[in-house]
Order: sequence, then C-alpha cells, then structure tokens
Amino acid sequence: MPIHFGGGKFDPTFIITQKATGISISYETSRQSLENFLPEGFELIEPRVSVAYNMFTEINWMHGGAYNVVDISVPVRFHGKKDQLEGMYPLVTWENQTAPILGGREQTGIPKIYADIEDLRVQRPHYIGAASSRGNTFLSLSFEETKELTGKELEAARAQHKSYNVFGWRWIPKVGGPGADLDQFIVYPQGLDLDHAFDGKGSLQWIEQTPMQYGHMHFIVNQLAAIPIKKFVSAILYNGGSRLNSVGSRVLK
Amino acid sequence: MPIHFGGGKFDPTFIITQKATGISISYETSRQSLENFLPEGFELIEPRVSVAYNMFTEINWMHGGAYNVVDISVPVRFHGKKDQLEGMYPLVTWENQTAPILGGREQTGIPKIYADIEDLRVQRPHYIGAASSRGNTFLSLSFEETKELTGKELEAARAQHKSYNVFGWRWIPKVGGPGADLDQFIVYPQGLDLDHAFDGKGSLQWIEQTPMQYGHMHFIVNQLAAIPIKKFVSAILYNGGSRLNSVGSRVLK
Amino acid sequence: MPIHFGGGKFDPTFIITQKATGISISYETSRQSLENFLPEGFELIEPRVSVAYNMFTEINWMHGGAYNVVDISVPVRFHGKKDQLEGMYPLVTWENQTAPILGGREQTGIPKIYADIEDLRVQRPHYIGAASSRGNTFLSLSFEETKELTGKELEAARAQHKSYNVFGWRWIPKVGGPGADLDQFIVYPQGLDLDHAFDGKGSLQWIEQTPMQYGHMHFIVNQLAAIPIKKFVSAILYNGGSRLNSVGSRVLK
Amino acid sequence: MPIHFGGGKFDPTFIITQKATGISISYETSRQSLENFLPEGFELIEPRVSVAYNMFTEINWMHGGAYNVVDISVPVRFHGKKDQLEGMYPLVTWENQTAPILGGREQTGIPKIYADIEDLRVQRPHYIGAASSRGNTFLSLSFEETKELTGKELEAARAQHKSYNVFGWRWIPKVGGPGADLDQFIVYPQGLDLDHAFDGKGSLQWIEQTPMQYGHMHFIVNQLAAIPIKKFVSAILYNGGSRLNSVGSRVLK
Repeated sequence: MPIHFGGGKFDPTFIITQKATGISISYETSRQSLENFLPEGFELIEPRVSVAYNMFTEINWMHGGAYNVVDISVPVRFHGKKDQLEGMYPLVTWENQTAPILGGREQTGIPKIYADIEDLRVQRPHYIGAASSRGNTFLSLSFEETKELTGKELEAARAQHKSYNVFGWRWIPKVGGPGADLDQFIVYPQGLDLDHAFDGKGSLQWIEQTPMQYGHMHFIVNQLAAIPIKKFVSAILYNGGSRLNSVGSRVLK
Repeated sequence: MPIHFGGGKFDPTFIITQKATGISISYETSRQSLENFLPEGFELIEPRVSVAYNMFTEINWMHGGAYNVVDISVPVRFHGKKDQLEGMYPLVTWENQTAPILGGREQTGIPKIYADIEDLRVQRPHYIGAASSRGNTFLSLSFEETKELTGKELEAARAQHKSYNVFGWRWIPKVGGPGADLDQFIVYPQGLDLDHAFDGKGSLQWIEQTPMQYGHMHFIVNQLAAIPIKKFVSAILYNGGSRLNSVGSRVLK
Repeated sequence: MPIHFGGGKFDPTFIITQKATGISISYETSRQSLENFLPEGFELIEPRVSVAYNMFTEINWMHGGAYNVVDISVPVRFHGKKDQLEGMYPLVTWENQTAPILGGREQTGIPKIYADIEDLRVQRPHYIGAASSRGNTFLSLSFEETKELTGKELEAARAQHKSYNVFGWRWIPKVGGPGADLDQFIVYPQGLDLDHAFDGKGSLQWIEQTPMQYGHMHFIVNQLAAIPIKKFVSAILYNGGSRLNSVGSRVLK
Repeated sequence: MPIHFGGGKFDPTFIITQKATGISISYETSRQSLENFLPEGFELIEPRVSVAYNMFTEINWMHGGAYNVVDISVPVRFHGKKDQLEGMYPLVTWENQTAPILGGREQTGIPKIYADIEDLRVQRPHYIGAASSRGNTFLSLSFEETKELTGKELEAARAQHKSYNVFGWRWIPKVGGPGADLDQFIVYPQGLDLDHAFDGKGSLQWIEQTPMQYGHMHFIVNQLAAIPIKKFVSAILYNGGSRLNSVGSRVLK
C-alpha cells in the first residue's frame, strides 16, 4: 500500500542483499517464561533468548539505504500437519526505519515495530548499543571483544549463520470487529555470510517503561524485562553480508 | 503484530481523540491526471487535490504522544453493489511516526508511509512546512494567514470538517507469490472539531526524487509531482480536536 | 563565526521573543553539594536546585524556529567590586538545537550543551519529559497538574517570573595551552510573561551515565545525579511569552 | 563551559584519533567570488572550492562517538608579520553533532555550525550525500566511483592528505555592544592517513534557502550558492584514519 501507483511488483528472482555488522548475545532463562509466548504448534528447543543487534547498510532494495535492528528470538521447532521445521521465533523485532517494518509485517508476518536504535558506539575493544522510545532508553547492551575467530572456529561460526529459518505469525485484524482476517504462520529463510567474527563478553539490561514513556506497546518491553536472565551464554560480534530471500518465504502447513 | 504479548484487544467503544493544528491547501488539476490513480468503483467528483499538513498532539491511544501527517487526497464517490458514498480517497498519507502507520494500514487500509515531517514553523502571519526523506526535501509548503474566520464563515468551516468519510484500499500480498491475500475497500469515518480557523494564501512545491535520494518509493513523489497544479483554490489554517472512530470503519460492499 | 559572510550585526534594539510552555520543578538539597560548583564571588541563597523544562516556539531570531531546554540552576547572590546582584546561576543548560547554544555560550557565557530533549508528552493531567544523549536517557521528569492558578496566586506567579537575572561564566580557552583568553562573569536579564499557570506535583530522576553512553561530558550528569534530592519543594506548569534582552547583558564587575 | 564541573583539562599530549570515510569534490570558480570572503592577510592560491563530506567514527575523545561533516574550504596563503603559511581556509564547516562544533569554534576558531548531514548512501559504484536544515535540503552531492587508486597514484593521494594546515578565525563578540573581545587567526595542523582511495566523477548542487526554511544563517547557504561552479576539477572517495592535533594549534602572527 499504496498500490494505485503501480510500484512494488512481485519479482520471484529478487534477493535482498546488504552489509551487516552486528552483535549477538544470548542468555539462558526459565522454560516457562518463554513458553508463555509461543503459539500452539511451536515447541521451545531450549530456554534461551537471542538478542541480535544489527546495523544493515548498502541495502539493495532501499537503493543504498541503511537501518538498525534489535531482534529478540527464541529457538523453536514447528510441528505442523505437513511441516516439521526448526528455526528462530522472533518475539519482537525493533527497527529504526519504517519501510522495512512494513514489508516484514505485511509480507512475512515478522513482528516488527519501531524503536530508535543507535549505531553501535565503538571504543575498541568496547561496543555499546541502546534502544529507546521517545527519549526513553529501554534496552542497553554492551560487548567487549576478546578474540577474533579464525580457522575452525570461524568456519563453525560461518556454518551456524549461513542459513536458518525465521518464523512469522502474520495476523491482520478484521475491520470493525474482533478477530482476524488473516492468521497464519510463515517461514522466512535467511542467511548471513560472515567475513569476520569475534568472541567476547556481552551483557544487556532491560529498563521497564511506563505507558507515557514508551507509548501504547510498553507492555512488550515490560514482559521482556520480566524474563529472568539466568546466565549470559554467548556473545559474538561479526560483519559480513546478509541475504534475505523474501520471496522464498511460504505459509506453513 | 506481535500478538503473542496479548495486547491491543479490540474495544468497540474506543474513540481516538487528539488535538490538531493543520493547514489544508487544495489545488485544481486535470481530471485525467487523477483518474489514473482511482481503482474501479471510485468516481472523481472534481479534479482537485487536497493537501492536509497536520500536527496531532495529546493523542489518547499513544498515551500523550504526537505525530505529524501530510495527506494527499482527492474527492470521490464510491459506487458499490450496496454502498453509495462520498468521501476523500487518499493517494498517500505520510506520517512521521511508525505506530500510527501500522494501525492505519493494517486496520483500515489507509496508504500510510513514512516521511520526516517538520513541525510547522511559525513567524506570524507566515507558516511553512517541509516533508523529506533521508535529508531530501520532497515537499515544501507555505501559508500566509490573512483573516480569522468568525460568525457564519466559521460555522461553515466547522460544518465542513465535522464529519467525513475516508476510503482505504487494504491490500495484503500473498506470501511467496504475486497477488493478494486481502484486497478490499474500507470506509473510515473521521471528524474534526474546529476551534479556530484562518483563511490565507497557500502554495506548495513538489521536488522530484531519484531512487537513491528518496528510496524505493520515489515513484510516488514523482507521480504526484507530475500532476499539474493549475490553480490553488483554497487554503485554511485551523486548530481543534480530532475524533477518529477507528472501530466505526467497515468493509465497503 | 563564521563572520566573513557579514551576517549577525549587533543590533542594540533587538529583543528576543518567543512562546514558552514549561515545567519548573525545584528540590531542596544540601548546601555543601551546591557550593562546590559556585565560583568565588557567588553566594548560595538557599540549597535549592531549579529544573526548568521549556519548549520555546515561534522564536523571532530563528525565523519561526523552536527548541527545547532543560536548565539546572541555583539561586545566588553575586558580590563583585561594584555589582551586588541576585539571580539564578545555571550549572548547565541543555538545549536540543545548536544555534541557540552557540549564541548563549559565546555572547553571554551561559553553560549550554546539547541533549536530545523530547517535547513534553501530555495526557492530562499528566506530563512527562525526557533528556537523553545518543539514545541514553539521563533525566526523566514527570508532572501532575492539580490546580490552575487564578487571581492573586496567578499574579504572584506572574510577578515572580516577570524579570530575573541569569549569570553566565564566559570562559574561552587559550589556544595550544592551559588557561583562558576570556574569563568573565556576565549578567543576562530575562523575563517570562505568564498567560496560564498550574500548580502540581513534580518529580524527576537522574540516571548515571558511563563515558561511552553519554560521551565526553558524562561527568556533568553524574555530578548532578550525586546531589541529594531531599525534598521536592515546588512544581509549576506554565505557558506564555518569553523576552530575552540578550543585548542588555553585561560583564559583571 | 560549563567549567565549574572541573572537566576538560588541557592535556598537551592528546591527539584526536578517529576513522574517516569521505568524499572530496572540488570545483573551479571565479577568483573574485572567493576573494570577497577572505580577511586581510589571506591570499587566494587558486580559485577553487573544496567540498569535503566526511563521516567520522570511533572518535577517541567522544568515547566511541561519531559525526558527519561538510566542509567548504579554499586554498590560501597566510602573510603575517612572522608567519608565512599555506593551507585551507574554511568558509563554513557544517557538522551534525554539537560537541565537536563547540570545541572547534572555541578552541580553534573553525567556523562550525550545525546541519543535518546524512550518512553517505551507497549503491556501488554510486554514493550520495545530503545536508539539510529543519527538513530543507540545501546541498546535494553525488559521486560515482570509477577506479581504485593503487601504486604511485595511491602514494600521491596519501602524501597529499598526510598533513596540511587549516586556518580558523576566532571571533568572540563583546558583551552588550558591537565588536569583539577576541579576534585572532589560528593555524590548526591536521592529517589524514588514507587506507583506500578511489577516483570518480563528482557533482553537487546548492539549493537556495529562505530565512524561514534554513533559519537565521540562511545567507551563508545563499552566498555559497551564488559562487559560480565553472567546472568540477576532482572527486575522490577515501577511507582511513584521521589525526587532529588540536593542542598543536596556535595563534598566527
């Protein structure tokens, strides 16, 4: 939308390409605190939250544009009537540009919403990130680079990021009444080609928000802040290229 | 989306309220240049483009948030199988906050997209506005206040803004293929309670954009810039309260 | 600077005018915690910190521009060789536009620095404000309107804001060495013509910052955060017009 | 300022370090159009305007901060009583962060003012930049990469950027009257260590501004826009490290 201008035709051969620099931090939590969020059909593989803080640049479909992302996902297995798949289930994906939010929601059901997301601030070996809503920080993240990955370790990191599934829940409400006109699960294959990767120590902090501070979706931050952080289990910094095969996505069965 | 947090329940009694300060400028153009954009079922009432530049504040559903809007609409009559209605058909509605864009698109099919929209700059009796994408101005607008409306003139302006229909075209694509999963026209009744209104002289200028300047929807600006401005026919500045009965919207038949 | 373009001539008749909407909250603290900041010649009148959160609009010298301010001041008496004056001594004045920061520093020695300062968010009777640096909130402020001032109370508030002195310490460093080329105290008479004023309950919270979060002046936030808040003593919301007689400022003797 | 917090001590050993990615485009103009801007003592070496569009990141004194710059300079020779020096005389230096503007103006007289300056948008081999004021674009810049410099060409580019003088005119007004309390020329030695450099085709466009669009310094843009662009003479893209020896600056004699 708007479609009366005639743009945005479907092109089955189109692959999104972009450069990516990001930090991924994961932490262990309780099984119950995550299962509460999972719709029927999704099984939690392990009680782990992955926070990926990415800066995307040189994005082809944006004609050279750029945006930042903070994605909060959990590892799941989908049990459908036909499909049996593993992948990441995003609880929420904040982005600091509207255009990719619209595409992600309407085409693939990724739960994207807006936040101000700072470019990573770099004072080697230290990195910090911050996500905020109208001047109110709700997530602070820090990373300390300890070792560049090489050889087999780099190969392992590359293999892990090369290809994975992301699951979306596309839900478009009825007009003027409760319930949905569209309600479906979607798989969206993605991949990241790592050039460099660094191990490190990562941590993050959620900051609870009042309705007036964050706005109408404050409960999302507060529910995430209520998930206990038992232990940070991994932290990695990387850069490389990202490929998103948005037309390779399909409705799950 | 995301809906696994359990927020955003449908409430049939909810009325959006907000304060509004805006400038509305309309210009005459050729019939053909507008009819190109209208989907079947919509008849152009007159070859006129209305540009409404609004600042909304104290928005209840945003818990006190604010945003700016530039809406480009044309007056139409809808001829459905059952519905025969007059109203405004928005060609595009730019807003500078993502949250109302998402609601407007997914709930009522209003063709909202993002732009940076400055607060009106005021040096009485002069006002200017500017809309831009990534630092590239695509619309400049200016207004010179000439006379406050009072008595019957104010009553007429109030009557004109009190209640009107806005038509949306909700179009949600299929996943992984051409065509749509949802494709419907919606009527969204809106209204503005004017407190003060001022006549004035208005003008505006479209600035064509390259793909790299504006981004992937540059063609929207350029198609609007190609619509000839034959004559500015009215310009008004107003402030007041706005009521949007989003749950009063319905699919047209 | 730059002055080779020939702009910005001194005009002794020029008065800055602007509209103002603001919240002023003051709190009691220890005498020692404030006296540490005062240069010789300034005596603390009472151990009170005034935080003024202002939105200025329709600014004449900015040709209709606008900006927001968070000013942190303490009440002082200046004892000079000739001058004996009472007024407010700003510890720091954050503003969200650079142009007034430059003028304030270079012309009158007001300790202005930059911060992102949100427009007040209004959900009557509640108001909140936030100041942040690169996505990191360092000051949160809230206000609840309890009563509009009328009659004698309004007159008292008007009298209090009508005219007051602000003291600046203009300090311009030597080039390539320690010490200053200019080091002087300045008095800058200001005034606010209140239209409406409201009593209320106010509070605020300082949030300590790391160097990477705030940047090189993080110590300012942290020193302010270390000042104990013993008791909030007043909170007022107002709107009106502001007059700043910048050419009426003079070096103190 | 503010200095009562005790920060910002002079450190003679401090060297600013940062990463830089930039585009430099120069054009030939008429001698007269540039000589108008030069204060007495400065001789124009050739009638050439250099526009440098830089993105600085990982800045040490900003604890990992970043900012963008658009600098407009001309090549000059300074004839003082003692000093005879060649270097670049900046007509204006726009930056998108206030902190470096304050330091540059007050410590070294560089004519820095604020603008919104976009990150370079990259769709190889194309790059664009834009500078704007309150949503009003005043400078558009584009570059097309044609050839990476290697061997002797790269060595030549490196030698040219390795070390050069920048001249500032520090002018601090009197308080409450015409004229200056400080009025002096300063030389500030700077250098850029190029890692990679690319030749290309560059162009740029100035867009005239009304006072309400740009604000009180609109005349700067308009005077620059009035300088004729006879011919673009060079365009280069580079990245590398930048060293600014701010304590190596000194007053010219």
